[in-house]
Amino acid sequence: MELTIFSDEHFMREALKEARKAFDAEEVPVGAVIVWQDKIIARAHNLTERLNDVTAHAEMQAITAAASAIGGKYLTECTLYVTLEPCVMCAGALQWSQIPKIIFGAHDTKRGYARFGNSLLHPKTQITGGVLETECAELMTTFFRERRK
Amino acid sequence: MELTIFSDEHFMREALKEARKAFDAEEVPVGAVIVWQDKIIARAHNLTERLNDVTAHAEMQAITAAASAIGGKYLTECTLYVTLEPCVMCAGALQWSQIPKIIFGAHDTKRGYARFGNSLLHPKTQITGGVLETECAELMTTFFRERRK
Repeated sequence: MELTIFSDEHFMREALKEARKAFDAEEVPVGAVIVWQDKIIARAHNLTERLNDVTAHAEMQAITAAASAIGGKYLTECTLYVTLEPCVMCAGALQWSQIPKIIFGAHDTKRGYARFGNSLLHPKTQITGGVLETECAELMTTFFRERRK
Repeated sequence: MELTIFSDEHFMREALKEARKAFDAEEVPVGAVIVWQDKIIARAHNLTERLNDVTAHAEMQAITAAASAIGGKYLTECTLYVTLEPCVMCAGALQWSQIPKIIFGAHDTKRGYARFGNSLLHPKTQITGGVLETECAELMTTFFRERRK
């Protein structure tokens, strides 16, 4: 009998699967899932190149898909798992979504929202960084190293 | 003979037409146009209610539409006209788009990006607020006054 434990690592591994899809499609490898009542209701990966659209970050698409799944635009009972610290745009979108919990993998000191402290998010939002950080960061490092060749 | 002058007020009036479409559809009345070489290449208004999507701000849709019109994801030769000061999400998206010029109508001290100074935008982006501010702000005030009735 297999025991499935719905840990943060479990859902981050699902976000990593999405990030690898982006990697394989030559997109900056960021993936996200949104979870509601221990179920994944949205999966997305970065599609800025394919869609020719700077707004097509994994988180943005996941927010849109999760709202569609729930049938309401506020994600007040959901958790976002994303392999990279959200940028300013995504932090702003997450604030509008009223999502109470955000878990990210790799920190992003250059483009991440946290350069501005937690003030871009809703004061009640819980945010945790560094879950499976090594795997999440390595995927990014490999991607950019290969592109520089 | 009619002389058409492509002033900031001219394009802001076009953004206001979009905002009025939002108003009529019972959406928060914000409209935007993106201009390239004196031509409007994208028009959009807020559709968060109709699309059930907190990310469907006028600016976000205009960025996506303009990139599609140009055939490239960076809007390096464009100007955005929007009736309301962009929020954090939209400022982040505008930063990614590399748009060099943003003109907005009404200031938004509660939700606008400028609470964080200009640091959310690219340092080279020129931003001007207050164009047709009275008309842009009145549309918002009327909308929220009617909803409170």
